[in-house]
Amino acid sequence: MKPRILDIRKGVLEKNDVLAGDLRNRFKDAGVFVANLVSSPGTGKTAFLERTLSLLLEKGYQAAALVGDLATENDAVRLARSGANVRQIVTGGNCHLEADMITNHLQNWEVDLDKLDFLFIENVGNLVCPSHYDLGEDVRVVLLSVTEGEDKPLKYPPMFNSADVAIITKVDLAEAVEFDRDTAIANIHNVRPGMTVFETSAKTDMGMDVWLRYLVTQQQESTTATPPS
Amino acid sequence: MKPRILDIRKGVLEKNDVLAGDLRNRFKDAGVFVANLVSSPGTGKTAFLERTLSLLLEKGYQAAALVGDLATENDAVRLARSGANVRQIVTGGNCHLEADMITNHLQNWEVDLDKLDFLFIENVGNLVCPSHYDLGEDVRVVLLSVTEGEDKPLKYPPMFNSADVAIITKVDLAEAVEFDRDTAIANIHNVRPGMTVFETSAKTDMGMDVWLRYLVTQQQESTTATPPS
Repeated sequence: MKPRILDIRKGVLEKNDVLAGDLRNRFKDAGVFVANLVSSPGTGKTAFLERTLSLLLEKGYQAAALVGDLATENDAVRLARSGANVRQIVTGGNCHLEADMITNHLQNWEVDLDKLDFLFIENVGNLVCPSHYDLGEDVRVVLLSVTEGEDKPLKYPPMFNSADVAIITKVDLAEAVEFDRDTAIANIHNVRPGMTVFETSAKTDMGMDVWLRYLVTQQQESTTATPPS
Repeated sequence: MKPRILDIRKGVLEKNDVLAGDLRNRFKDAGVFVANLVSSPGTGKTAFLERTLSLLLEKGYQAAALVGDLATENDAVRLARSGANVRQIVTGGNCHLEADMITNHLQNWEVDLDKLDFLFIENVGNLVCPSHYDLGEDVRVVLLSVTEGEDKPLKYPPMFNSADVAIITKVDLAEAVEFDRDTAIANIHNVRPGMTVFETSAKTDMGMDVWLRYLVTQQQESTTATPPS
């Protein structure tokens, strides 16, 4: 029975990849830089994203977010406090976002992609399943909090391996939880050699400036790199 | 395509339930009380379980553990420090344990179920998928750390709804992270009215005595309630 499931899952993934390719073209044409945020539940994705959105808006950029959860609209409500446009995707039982959910939720949204500089997608809190699903993003960002333990990258290699950058969150708590920074970064690089790692606190703003500079540079490069259509 | 996947998943679940039923009978016959621990990555399942095993062994009980991870044997090494017999189940890409993995790993293990009082199964860190898979356990224990946010039960209702008891971990950090205990417990009870909640710290041992008393009582009740075979 198992091979049949794998075959069908493969079909679903292939279909997802086609839709993700369409999304990627659409984002490129609109000149919007898209980041897909993945982590386990409780890493602080929402607090980190709320702060990121606020800081980008303060600097005059246009930013919006789609946020996935199994249930509740809590995260959209929290993120909207930043002033950005935010839309919740309630996945029902689904433990990850898929490209067609993004396509569907871009329809009938008050946000015009052409006017956006940044679109963030906050994935469902899950360190396993979202690694398989491309959403057409420019960068996949994996978050890891200092309270989670330094060996997460070794225990969830597909997620860390499929990500482009890693964010260590809640560094204001590092001392209280005896976080071993060097080991954590060594473990990240063990799974994904050379991956850029940002160390941040959404509470104290530590490291948020470096992260923002990275985003702005990436957005400028991706926009100027677009061939005229 | 989706209905076909659902049909096949249902088939897999039905097969799992049959195997889980066999395991449950086997555990009952052996007089061993079995707990299945589920949570997101980083909640502190391993630290909590290591301390639980140590305390049970100190009191003269026989306890062992099976521990599931996508990759690495780290958790088995950590848990073995308690002095208990521990066996790692590396699931490869699988984001949860299934009954057949338990059956397979009980074979050729130096542990004799008949001599055990307690068997713990530490599931893969994932707040979604393990909720669907019965492992033949007596109790399913969901863990939630004070660093994760009080709304996890609302955002992951199937996991909290399918659990028998909840453990709040890392309560020594509650003040540092401004944990709102009343809201967290209200959210747990919103999803699963009346569920027993233990508040613990594996670091300071806070609440571990209450949790241990619960385990011992449950084990005695389940053993004496077994009809003679």
